[in-house]
Amino acid sequence: MEERQAPARSLFGVDPMDEFSVFVSDWIWERAQGQSHIEIEAKVGTLIDRHTNMRLQLPVFTETVIDARALGVRFESNMPMHQNFNQLLNELVQYSSGMYEGQRVSYKHVRETDSFYDEVLPTGENVHLRVTRDSQTQQIKPGGVVAKKRIDDLNIYCPMRMYDYRISISTETPMPRPPESSAPTFVREKDRLSYALQNFQVDLTQVTLPHRDQEPVHELEVEICQADELLRWAQYTCASGESREEWTQFEDHILVLLNNVRLLIRNADNHARECHPV
Amino acid sequence: MEERQAPARSLFGVDPMDEFSVFVSDWIWERAQGQSHIEIEAKVGTLIDRHTNMRLQLPVFTETVIDARALGVRFESNMPMHQNFNQLLNELVQYSSGMYEGQRVSYKHVRETDSFYDEVLPTGENVHLRVTRDSQTQQIKPGGVVAKKRIDDLNIYCPMRMYDYRISISTETPMPRPPESSAPTFVREKDRLSYALQNFQVDLTQVTLPHRDQEPVHELEVEICQADELLRWAQYTCASGESREEWTQFEDHILVLLNNVRLLIRNADNHARECHPV
Repeated sequence: MEERQAPARSLFGVDPMDEFSVFVSDWIWERAQGQSHIEIEAKVGTLIDRHTNMRLQLPVFTETVIDARALGVRFESNMPMHQNFNQLLNELVQYSSGMYEGQRVSYKHVRETDSFYDEVLPTGENVHLRVTRDSQTQQIKPGGVVAKKRIDDLNIYCPMRMYDYRISISTETPMPRPPESSAPTFVREKDRLSYALQNFQVDLTQVTLPHRDQEPVHELEVEICQADELLRWAQYTCASGESREEWTQFEDHILVLLNNVRLLIRNADNHARECHPV
Repeated sequence: MEERQAPARSLFGVDPMDEFSVFVSDWIWERAQGQSHIEIEAKVGTLIDRHTNMRLQLPVFTETVIDARALGVRFESNMPMHQNFNQLLNELVQYSSGMYEGQRVSYKHVRETDSFYDEVLPTGENVHLRVTRDSQTQQIKPGGVVAKKRIDDLNIYCPMRMYDYRISISTETPMPRPPESSAPTFVREKDRLSYALQNFQVDLTQVTLPHRDQEPVHELEVEICQADELLRWAQYTCASGESREEWTQFEDHILVLLNNVRLLIRNADNHARECHPV
């Protein structure tokens, strides 16, 4: 009989489920189930207190999901450390290039122009259209006309870090292109570096608003590439009797989304520490 | 070449370290390193807002370490669900009784009387002594005279749960017994059920104050049994060059402490749900 055992994870013999991942997974599931053309993404940025116009200050020491409405905060997605992230992500591409194909981080550089239109459908419904064109050829990209509708946001405060993050669920429903006679209400230029591994894509985007006297904005976001498929899978495990109170591949997928955002944010911290040692 | 790989944990190829466990581990390490006779324990209870005298309400949705001073909260360790926990823990003893010795939860029932004395040492120093006697024989227990000194508390708010918890670090330094002529300032009776597995002990204690017209208080706490040894081990890994920024057996040990507290609290939730289905 083997007397020496691995340390028990608890008196119950198990690790508890990670409350945070389960909370985020449930939040996504409740809002996205049964919908099509779902987009799930997490943006790195700063939670801003509307009263002070400064970063939110709460008397807590560790990462937590906040009640943004109760607190009166807004999320600012500008991420000035663009170049550092560019370098870091390029290093990941380089580092993983010797690995098996499924473990290599891929890289893509695209320049796109988004034009937004407010249209009225034949049904009388108002719709907000986004038309995405290749900036060079001005051709509309495949699947480039969508009605984007924000479903909900979840705001996460990271008091130990330089940045907070926000998880958003939207639908991006393919639509016919607007009539030639329509004029866009708004145009933006995106210069985007996309890094992808398996079902996750990290976008580092410089957004410029032409004809406006404004500095470019830099955004850093992580997207689940095939969210519809993920949700169908979650639906399937639900239907086959697995309770949403169990840890499934759905929760694990959401945890990998969180892993990516958290590691990006921590690398921003590390870089800042190297530049300004304290 | 194997094309189908396990899902990558992130674009970085790894899971990030668990921020919460690392925060708690660092907090303990900073306060306990180099000290002897350390006691590390976590109590289940309720964070009380001093202004409202009700449970703390913060606009956050997930477990987080709070700044108790800034918030003006106190911790109340009374845990009325004594009987449910008694039953649950007895079931763990029963369930694990068929396992290997190192995985069995042990059980012990003790009745002790604590008497507290304020003494002045020959050096002129004031000291607060606790003398623990077997309630039946009134014999002082081995190592039963200590000077207990609280070093610090860490308060954790659990908005999704019925209870919060507090982690405390103290020293319990063995002392000679007070002179026969001394009278205790305070006496309490403890009726304690102790459940232990490896280096962790869960105590379910009913505390009665004799000669006081007061209901017994019930406490639920998890203790690291050999904290001094754990800290010596952590010191050793530090000295041997492992950075405190890495996940070591010390962090993992603290995570098991958290596992135990969290699973106890979640079981209180589950029990409440079974009794009052919502």
